[in-house]
Amino acid sequence: MTQAAIFDQLWSAITDIGRNPVTGGYRRFAWTEADLRMREWFAGQCQSRGLELIEDRMGNQWAWWGDPDGSATGGIVTGSHLDSVPDGGAFDGPLGVVSGLLAVDRLRSDGFRPSRPIGVVNFVDEEGARFGVSCVGSRVITGVLGPDQALALRDADGVTMAEAMRAAGRQPEQLGPDPEALSRIGSFVELHIEQGRGLINLGRPVAVGNGLWAHGRWRMEIPGQANHAGTTRLNDRRDAVIGCAQLVLATRAAAEAHNSLATVGKINIMPGGVNAIAGLATAWLDARAADEAALSATVDHIEGQLASLGGVMIEESRTPYTEFDGALVTRLARLLDDAPVLSTGAGHDAGILANAGVSAAMIFVRNPTGISHSPAEWAEPEDCLAGVIALASVLADLAKPEP
Amino acid sequence: MTQAAIFDQLWSAITDIGRNPVTGGYRRFAWTEADLRMREWFAGQCQSRGLELIEDRMGNQWAWWGDPDGSATGGIVTGSHLDSVPDGGAFDGPLGVVSGLLAVDRLRSDGFRPSRPIGVVNFVDEEGARFGVSCVGSRVITGVLGPDQALALRDADGVTMAEAMRAAGRQPEQLGPDPEALSRIGSFVELHIEQGRGLINLGRPVAVGNGLWAHGRWRMEIPGQANHAGTTRLNDRRDAVIGCAQLVLATRAAAEAHNSLATVGKINIMPGGVNAIAGLATAWLDARAADEAALSATVDHIEGQLASLGGVMIEESRTPYTEFDGALVTRLARLLDDAPVLSTGAGHDAGILANAGVSAAMIFVRNPTGISHSPAEWAEPEDCLAGVIALASVLADLAKPEP
Repeated sequence: MTQAAIFDQLWSAITDIGRNPVTGGYRRFAWTEADLRMREWFAGQCQSRGLELIEDRMGNQWAWWGDPDGSATGGIVTGSHLDSVPDGGAFDGPLGVVSGLLAVDRLRSDGFRPSRPIGVVNFVDEEGARFGVSCVGSRVITGVLGPDQALALRDADGVTMAEAMRAAGRQPEQLGPDPEALSRIGSFVELHIEQGRGLINLGRPVAVGNGLWAHGRWRMEIPGQANHAGTTRLNDRRDAVIGCAQLVLATRAAAEAHNSLATVGKINIMPGGVNAIAGLATAWLDARAADEAALSATVDHIEGQLASLGGVMIEESRTPYTEFDGALVTRLARLLDDAPVLSTGAGHDAGILANAGVSAAMIFVRNPTGISHSPAEWAEPEDCLAGVIALASVLADLAKPEP
Repeated sequence: MTQAAIFDQLWSAITDIGRNPVTGGYRRFAWTEADLRMREWFAGQCQSRGLELIEDRMGNQWAWWGDPDGSATGGIVTGSHLDSVPDGGAFDGPLGVVSGLLAVDRLRSDGFRPSRPIGVVNFVDEEGARFGVSCVGSRVITGVLGPDQALALRDADGVTMAEAMRAAGRQPEQLGPDPEALSRIGSFVELHIEQGRGLINLGRPVAVGNGLWAHGRWRMEIPGQANHAGTTRLNDRRDAVIGCAQLVLATRAAAEAHNSLATVGKINIMPGGVNAIAGLATAWLDARAADEAALSATVDHIEGQLASLGGVMIEESRTPYTEFDGALVTRLARLLDDAPVLSTGAGHDAGILANAGVSAAMIFVRNPTGISHSPAEWAEPEDCLAGVIALASVLADLAKPEP
């Protein structure tokens, strides 16, 4: 069987899991049935390869080729995540996991004998689509997110993460930092679909990622006075939706002013009736910038507008600019035929690990639509294979037998 | 027991039904458990008074004092509705039903013997909070809303009205126009909490309603291109939330320009993730005006803005200006110590009946906050009693023994 055929086979097994047949998008939220099916699929793939599967204290799945504790300097780990944003694409996350498994297959069929253990990880709840905080899997094991804080997070139905984990058969009380799991990582290289147009513009299938923009999420509460839409004169109104609209336009203006990105993609209106003037609007801000100063300026700009509307801003998460291991980035770029080196505005578990002191880098695979977090996300099969080949050569280089 | 004490007793029985303990607001949506409990409470009140309860083909509940078919010119009917908007107040709807029951009690304790049957009605699904169309109870029995159209309406969970009614033990296939129920109405006088500040300004507890503004609901779809909030450059974005914000501000401008009311109180964003640029925003427009021309100008203005954003507008309902029976309005105003006469921007079942040829009018009771569709809606007990006394004298006048 060719690598391409195996690739097809891997994808076909998960292509329908959590997929909306109308939009073609995925809703694989942490600890939902779709997510559990993806985890189960991953466990089966590891089992069929004879990889040892270890679930850490947060529920991240680590599959090991070789004894994970058999190297003083730790193993070489790749992988990504299997959850999705609402109506997400097929590649964001799963491409990194599938490519990791196929890279192992490729190395084995080449007769490669690693000098260090090689791992493929599935990080839980990377997107934060259900509980509002991204990269929960890596944040918890590195201690960035406390277990009590994580377990108290609630989804849109009011279900806590603790309840969701318990429903999935986990023991939430075990959740917490996991230095043992971290100590097994010598280097981490996450392969991911590109989420922009960098590789399109460069005409290359694969790039190396050297860093993540500073980014965060803020909840913004815009007050109003709930009232009847049909009887309240315009001058007597305090309409939270009007304030929200002004704020949305202010976020765009702030991003333009500070050369950053600022987005409102989720809004909740109370009471939310067609014939009710809103008493409260909650809008979530996603802001990113290439440096801390630009991010702070963007958020301050928006917070000023919000304050003038009588509103308040609550920081839900913030991650500083993350620089990957420079030596590792250089080594990968050279190894991959002088691959271009890109930074990204997206957050990744690789960034959380890097901030915790892990030597990390990323590999990006070209996305011909440039569109991400949408069913329109795409990667050509030949680019996916180029990614697998690149990843295999990286793993081989990092785990090659000592001379 | 005093009238005030009875009033308290009536209210206390329903004060907790469908009430959010945090906001104090009600969520009594058609055919939900809260609504069924309200209906059951109404049935019990009728039973204890020896009123004959008849449920028509749509599920509206009619309680009769006297043989409903015993008058060639029909009975005198009062009442209102028991459902609510999301997080609605206690008075909008129930005040009319409770006042109707108490007016009957008052007439009976006065030894009044009506020459025509007197009815108290509870119209189902007046607010349209669950299925998106208001006054379903009166629209269906008057034939304004076809049974197939009504039954196919879906709530936010995708449940059709047919399914909801069946779950409540009704037979949806029986639903349709009900000329028999309508033929029993000689005159309809709906008592309702005022939804504005008219009576505050006039310093009066009670007014007579002479008409309803032209009003309607429109669904507006604003397109975008779903994409990743962290990686898509501002110039590469087509963000439906930005378009939606512009549209919200345009609705306000349109209302100011045309001396009307225009409100967006409900917005749905797809995919709705914090880190996803929206691919589609749906916003609902509630628009009202004192005449048809102003309403059309308002909606046309907004539709023009929407078209410039590449969006489309779908009319979900539209009700023309409704003039109540002029002779009835004059009679009521004289009877009630020259009560002020007001029109309102709100829709009511009385308007649907009036448009179907029923002699109808309304009585409004002062709302000292001027706020409606909100837990802040209020009526002082003495004003509620003034409403009951006014309603009793209206029923007595309209059903007085022939000289």
